[in-house]
Amino acid sequence: MAYDDKNIFARILRGEAPCIKVYEDDATLAIMDVMPQSEGHLLVLPKEGAEFIYELSLEAGAAAMATVQKMAVAMRKVLAPEGLLIAQFNGAAAGQTVPHVHFHLIPRRAGEELRPHAREMADMAQLEALAARIRAVL
Amino acid sequence: MAYDDKNIFARILRGEAPCIKVYEDDATLAIMDVMPQSEGHLLVLPKEGAEFIYELSLEAGAAAMATVQKMAVAMRKVLAPEGLLIAQFNGAAAGQTVPHVHFHLIPRRAGEELRPHAREMADMAQLEALAARIRAVL
Repeated sequence: MAYDDKNIFARILRGEAPCIKVYEDDATLAIMDVMPQSEGHLLVLPKEGAEFIYELSLEAGAAAMATVQKMAVAMRKVLAPEGLLIAQFNGAAAGQTVPHVHFHLIPRRAGEELRPHAREMADMAQLEALAARIRAVL
Repeated sequence: MAYDDKNIFARILRGEAPCIKVYEDDATLAIMDVMPQSEGHLLVLPKEGAEFIYELSLEAGAAAMATVQKMAVAMRKVLAPEGLLIAQFNGAAAGQTVPHVHFHLIPRRAGEELRPHAREMADMAQLEALAARIRAVL
């Protein structure tokens, strides 16, 4: 399927929409999810324009995974959640809401239910403070 | 945490326990999940011994991601599910049941609920037939 570069992540990657950035390198961007399913919910985006994992180059996949791993280590240092769920959704039937490949890193805590996906906006000042704590350990 | 090499995936990787293999290379193994959450549920294991993503080397992570991407493409060819969920669980609070890093590739179909994780054994002959169909397009 043709990639549609008007989606919100493409706009963030071009600097046309704001984000709370945690990390960036040549091939990837890590940002706070503004509708977090739990405290610390972070997203890793490959910069390559691909809607689904099927279309992503192996190089972009490897770069995304390296950033996922770096963010996971940093999130553990800062948040020390009991668990960490890493998920990537392809297609609406799998829960995908933005047509640009992205990896969710969602802290899990015993007895805490996840909030619904892409539903409720977080407090931006709180998210920025959390992002700053994660950036500080990278 | 020290890696415990007596877990079932470590035993499969050493050839001490059976599996339904879909793909193998120097750094990874892809097998059918014998307790699938949906038809076609597949697992990708890095061969490196690591309990959590935090401990996995970037090289092993990149190799795992490459195999995830190859399997995703093959699963789409064979099963054409409407969606594909890719997930990796760290810690029991996130749903991890085997202490060796693994990636779930779970076909999603509209209106179909996922079966519970690690609960009910599939029919082995059916799984083997499915694995053969996926191997055929690799």
